[in-house]
Amino acid sequence: MNKIPGIKVIAFDADDTLWENETFFREAENQFAELIKDYAGRDEVLRILYEVEMANMPVYGYGIKAFILSLIETAQLLSGFRITARQTSELIDLGKEMLKKPVVLLEGVEEVLQQLHGHYKLIVATKGDLLDQERKLEKSGLGSYFHHIEVMSDKHTEAYRSLIAHLDCQPKQVLMVGNSLKSDVLPILECGGWGAHIPFHTTWHHELVTEEIVSNQFYELTSIKQLPELVF
Amino acid sequence: MNKIPGIKVIAFDADDTLWENETFFREAENQFAELIKDYAGRDEVLRILYEVEMANMPVYGYGIKAFILSLIETAQLLSGFRITARQTSELIDLGKEMLKKPVVLLEGVEEVLQQLHGHYKLIVATKGDLLDQERKLEKSGLGSYFHHIEVMSDKHTEAYRSLIAHLDCQPKQVLMVGNSLKSDVLPILECGGWGAHIPFHTTWHHELVTEEIVSNQFYELTSIKQLPELVF
Repeated sequence: MNKIPGIKVIAFDADDTLWENETFFREAENQFAELIKDYAGRDEVLRILYEVEMANMPVYGYGIKAFILSLIETAQLLSGFRITARQTSELIDLGKEMLKKPVVLLEGVEEVLQQLHGHYKLIVATKGDLLDQERKLEKSGLGSYFHHIEVMSDKHTEAYRSLIAHLDCQPKQVLMVGNSLKSDVLPILECGGWGAHIPFHTTWHHELVTEEIVSNQFYELTSIKQLPELVF
Repeated sequence: MNKIPGIKVIAFDADDTLWENETFFREAENQFAELIKDYAGRDEVLRILYEVEMANMPVYGYGIKAFILSLIETAQLLSGFRITARQTSELIDLGKEMLKKPVVLLEGVEEVLQQLHGHYKLIVATKGDLLDQERKLEKSGLGSYFHHIEVMSDKHTEAYRSLIAHLDCQPKQVLMVGNSLKSDVLPILECGGWGAHIPFHTTWHHELVTEEIVSNQFYELTSIKQLPELVF
């Protein structure tokens, strides 16, 4: 039984919904803490890094380039500007390595896209570095399942409204699928669309929400493999 | 007389077509050369910076964050890793200032958009940092004239093909207007669309082309104010 009638578009978040991502950031943070351990302990490093990232968000936005720039700034602050050019260079290399990481698909993703393809317009709706997200989509081998990729500077309600207008459809015709309640579920429900949440084992604290979601257009799933049951 | 019959979409490049941009990069390069003058002369600084930018292009793409990261790397190379954390911090500040610059519209832009609006679907098709381009469009006050903004990771022929597919129209129905023959004109002609070139006084050498363009779907303009003559 089709639980979500009338939808035409299924939009997928990419990072930690289609493929692994957050784990690479956590690994990079650990390498960063190790690299500057002479200046601060791990907890302080992570706390100040998060503060710097949040302060830079309005100018840099999301993505790996923003992350590298915030790593450099955090290292300067914590070292009292004693961080060396060689160490800063290691941070840049760390970022470049992140940008070259292989794409590791999450379990069930490809078989579900195969089932849905041809029945719905499938799109990717993600935030982050534009080029990096395109690169990951290409490396993923999933490109042919999707009508197109939308890289958004932020995933707030207004951005989803623009996306829906751009797709020339009604909010009720859109289902958004993702691992972040804050970025993938709450704003689409606010617009009048449908949301499906599939948690990933690691969530950046910037993406955490505490409120309980009450909506008959919301589904909590444990795996992307449950998605076909909702739409067929 | 309408010289370009049958078009539905007019796509505008943004930087140096709608508003000033390249001048800010040239200013930043001059500040950069001044900042590291103890390590290299201006010509060498600009030459190595360009090499570093080109080497980083496949991983970083276009935009100010990529530019800042390349400035830092160039300073490390030219100083033999003697550049200090304070100096690197100045480079980061230089980048942040660029990201906060006011938007200066080029002459005639707003009046031309006013004339075209309602007669054609107007879009912005630009490359660079996603958030930065959205910020500039918002600051420009031109947002209401445009159906939407497309930030592209690169403006090659394949990217224009995707854009046209995404717009659900035919190449012959699209006119692209911009200051770069390489990024705004040649690839759209290659797709079968129309191109109008409006030179800006400063062109990054990465954007220069030497070939002569022979096409009856190409127009060379001296000002955006000539655009309405082509399409009405």
